[in-house]
Amino acid sequence: MKAAIVGGGLIGGGWAARFLLHGWDVAVSDPSPKVEAQIGAILDNARQWLPALADVPMPAEGKLTFAESLADAVSDADWVQESAPEELALKHKVLAEIQANAPDTAIVGSSTSGFKPSELQEGAKNPGQILVAHPFNPVYLLPLVEVVAGTACGEDVRNQACEHLKAIGMEPLIVRNEIDAHLADRFMEAVWREALWLVKDDVATTEEIDNSIRYGFGLRWGQMGLFETFRLAGGEEGMAHFIRQFGPCLKWPWTKLMDVPDMTEELVQKIADQSDAQSGQYSIRELEWIRDRNLVGMLRSLKERDWGAGRVLNQNDQRLAASADGGSPMDESVPQRLLDLTVLPAWIDYNGHMTEFRYVQVFSDSCEALLRLVGMHDEYVAAGHSYYTAETHNQFFDEVGVNESIYTTVQILLADAKRLHVFYRMHAVEDDRLLATLEAMYLHVNMKTGKVVAAESDATTKLMKIAEVHMALEKPEAAGRYVGQR
Amino acid sequence: MKAAIVGGGLIGGGWAARFLLHGWDVAVSDPSPKVEAQIGAILDNARQWLPALADVPMPAEGKLTFAESLADAVSDADWVQESAPEELALKHKVLAEIQANAPDTAIVGSSTSGFKPSELQEGAKNPGQILVAHPFNPVYLLPLVEVVAGTACGEDVRNQACEHLKAIGMEPLIVRNEIDAHLADRFMEAVWREALWLVKDDVATTEEIDNSIRYGFGLRWGQMGLFETFRLAGGEEGMAHFIRQFGPCLKWPWTKLMDVPDMTEELVQKIADQSDAQSGQYSIRELEWIRDRNLVGMLRSLKERDWGAGRVLNQNDQRLAASADGGSPMDESVPQRLLDLTVLPAWIDYNGHMTEFRYVQVFSDSCEALLRLVGMHDEYVAAGHSYYTAETHNQFFDEVGVNESIYTTVQILLADAKRLHVFYRMHAVEDDRLLATLEAMYLHVNMKTGKVVAAESDATTKLMKIAEVHMALEKPEAAGRYVGQR
Repeated sequence: MKAAIVGGGLIGGGWAARFLLHGWDVAVSDPSPKVEAQIGAILDNARQWLPALADVPMPAEGKLTFAESLADAVSDADWVQESAPEELALKHKVLAEIQANAPDTAIVGSSTSGFKPSELQEGAKNPGQILVAHPFNPVYLLPLVEVVAGTACGEDVRNQACEHLKAIGMEPLIVRNEIDAHLADRFMEAVWREALWLVKDDVATTEEIDNSIRYGFGLRWGQMGLFETFRLAGGEEGMAHFIRQFGPCLKWPWTKLMDVPDMTEELVQKIADQSDAQSGQYSIRELEWIRDRNLVGMLRSLKERDWGAGRVLNQNDQRLAASADGGSPMDESVPQRLLDLTVLPAWIDYNGHMTEFRYVQVFSDSCEALLRLVGMHDEYVAAGHSYYTAETHNQFFDEVGVNESIYTTVQILLADAKRLHVFYRMHAVEDDRLLATLEAMYLHVNMKTGKVVAAESDATTKLMKIAEVHMALEKPEAAGRYVGQR
Repeated sequence: MKAAIVGGGLIGGGWAARFLLHGWDVAVSDPSPKVEAQIGAILDNARQWLPALADVPMPAEGKLTFAESLADAVSDADWVQESAPEELALKHKVLAEIQANAPDTAIVGSSTSGFKPSELQEGAKNPGQILVAHPFNPVYLLPLVEVVAGTACGEDVRNQACEHLKAIGMEPLIVRNEIDAHLADRFMEAVWREALWLVKDDVATTEEIDNSIRYGFGLRWGQMGLFETFRLAGGEEGMAHFIRQFGPCLKWPWTKLMDVPDMTEELVQKIADQSDAQSGQYSIRELEWIRDRNLVGMLRSLKERDWGAGRVLNQNDQRLAASADGGSPMDESVPQRLLDLTVLPAWIDYNGHMTEFRYVQVFSDSCEALLRLVGMHDEYVAAGHSYYTAETHNQFFDEVGVNESIYTTVQILLADAKRLHVFYRMHAVEDDRLLATLEAMYLHVNMKTGKVVAAESDATTKLMKIAEVHMALEKPEAAGRYVGQR
């Protein structure tokens, strides 16, 4: 599959990264001389963080090209994503050029945050292939994409578009009735207006406003949204009760939203100054890094709970695993690479290095990844069996500091019905230096009785097959070592 | 310290739980016959989830009483929290009764979401002790509390109030200028209005609206808020550039916020029906459990990143650790008893037992305790030397569950100038059963050069003396064992 990205800014670049990392070829068309650098920077971010959301291997990355012309980029595309500036006349011009050169079957998605699809479709050669596919920054991490078909685009094309979007890990939200700014931006706009008043009137600074969101309701909204959160406030008496109680508040003089403050140069500068005071110690690149690391953490935690955006990630894993041509997702390379991680600030000890037990945490997570790969994870444990750690031997070879990228590999030394004996290595990504090893013996346990029992399932067969390959390899020198051995 | 909770609903109950779990005594005053059950249910939630945010032991829980009268509840309180219904006349009556019976020095916080503190202070006996302390549901998990002093309450009282609020793990956000609904609720109100229009006009259902938030910007806001998020969209060209570019959008007809829809019974029922379709498969108790589990996960993930609400949690840990007393005293018994601990909720894996790497964390903390015992800790490290772990061998013998008390012992197997070879055991306090052992080899390192060097100090002499006693003892059977040894 091939995607053409028309407009390679922050949004277009995010689209390019999402397509590429899900195995699509991508051709970028953007006249800016900076486009290669821009896309490269976004891809760096995406390569670091997007795979950290998956628990199955991602497909091989697609091929990225920078097209000489828009016509070149779109000529053989299955999907064309238009991310031009928000000017209707300009968008009409770009869409016409796209449709003059792209296959008739190509879906043309527009990243517009403001325009209705009918406005975009007006006067188009093939209006039924154009729809709004509005993503959210960072496009390579946030799953939401608002899909609006408008009057000209039929259900078939819309549904096909949704399938493509799901295949790159997104959650299409079909906006059934077109409306200026779709859904999410209207809410952001409402808060933005209110926030501008508060800054203008010196009620609060940009930092105070951000804190009023991120220490409180922002955390609620990230997992449930607005109505489900309020449903909880209504208690067992129900939503209708809550609204009847809360409704009258709408009569209160709570907001100034009847009007919009004049965006004078003075107000612009005031906001910019407050924002500098709040966040100016970080560059934009640093803030992006912090944001992405935070989002990955919150998303992974929701993923473990199979809720909200985390459920989207689990569904994408299933999709990725299913499309990995039926066989084992483990490849033939040995030792098997298991986990890619970044050392987090909380993992650092008073010496400034990753602290001992965090090494073990990473090796434990590697064990989870190994079991997940062979299909011995959530459902397997829910059905009453699990591997318990009997004993381990750890060697520590080098220090690793905060924000360093690390990866682990595994070599299975022995797998029989009851025992799983493995050898992990942890390396730094940067220079591949060996940081630590862990040799571990796991026992297969019936969790109800607490007794060691034989494993017998398809997953066991899969594990044995991998073990067979690994056991034919040279045994790691440190395997079987005891503490203090010369 | 003692807190009086006046009004024991969802919010008052959340306050009660936060105070109790941070060691305050709490007296609740609420005429409702259901109050004990309500507070009990909230406390159940809070006991499950709040300690899961800490990485140090919480103080012993305070004493909870249900007072016969408001006067009884507040008579010896250091803090009185008023959470009566949002009617100004009623609040005035309750505040007057509080101030007639509470010590003059008691701080009176109001949970009001709408009223300005000046309105509450009007006509009060002691207006300077009244301020707004507006929390967010669930109060026992979300750190935000808006503190508004109004015209009558001075800085001293406000600052003292903030110290108390920090001591119960909250993040006071001082709202410098009083305004109806303070800050956060104005933003929620703005979104609420917009959402009501969209439901009324059949543009989107409650579920679609929630998804438009939680799959996208809700995740951003939970860690950075509004302005810092937008700062990123501006890129290196800065915030002023972004606002100049984004400003014109305010002229677009994006929102209907000029007006408020009539909250007719038909609209109420429509929202309630859509909410049932979205969330009706869960009871409110189930939704609370899901929400709290999600929030704990997102908060813990932010805590590891030391960012936003997670940084608030780390600061609270430091506060809790500083106020705890020095730990268990060391005696002359052999093997030397080192640490007494309680298994924390966050240490539990999906099998319901303490997870592997937390065992290692306890053994690491035991090593710290050993080094502290001989005087090789903070100052020793600051002076440039430390013991680094070279290798370890772990055996796991039994499971241990949340809230179980455990202790560790150490036996030194060898101590020479460069090496320290020790054997730890971990036991359950209740039945003394052996949970795990760790054999470890530490090397004495010059932290500047990273080289192994001889230790020579008074502390070394002390360590050698203990080692002499230990080395004369029988060697543990498992010492020198390798993984998989029969």
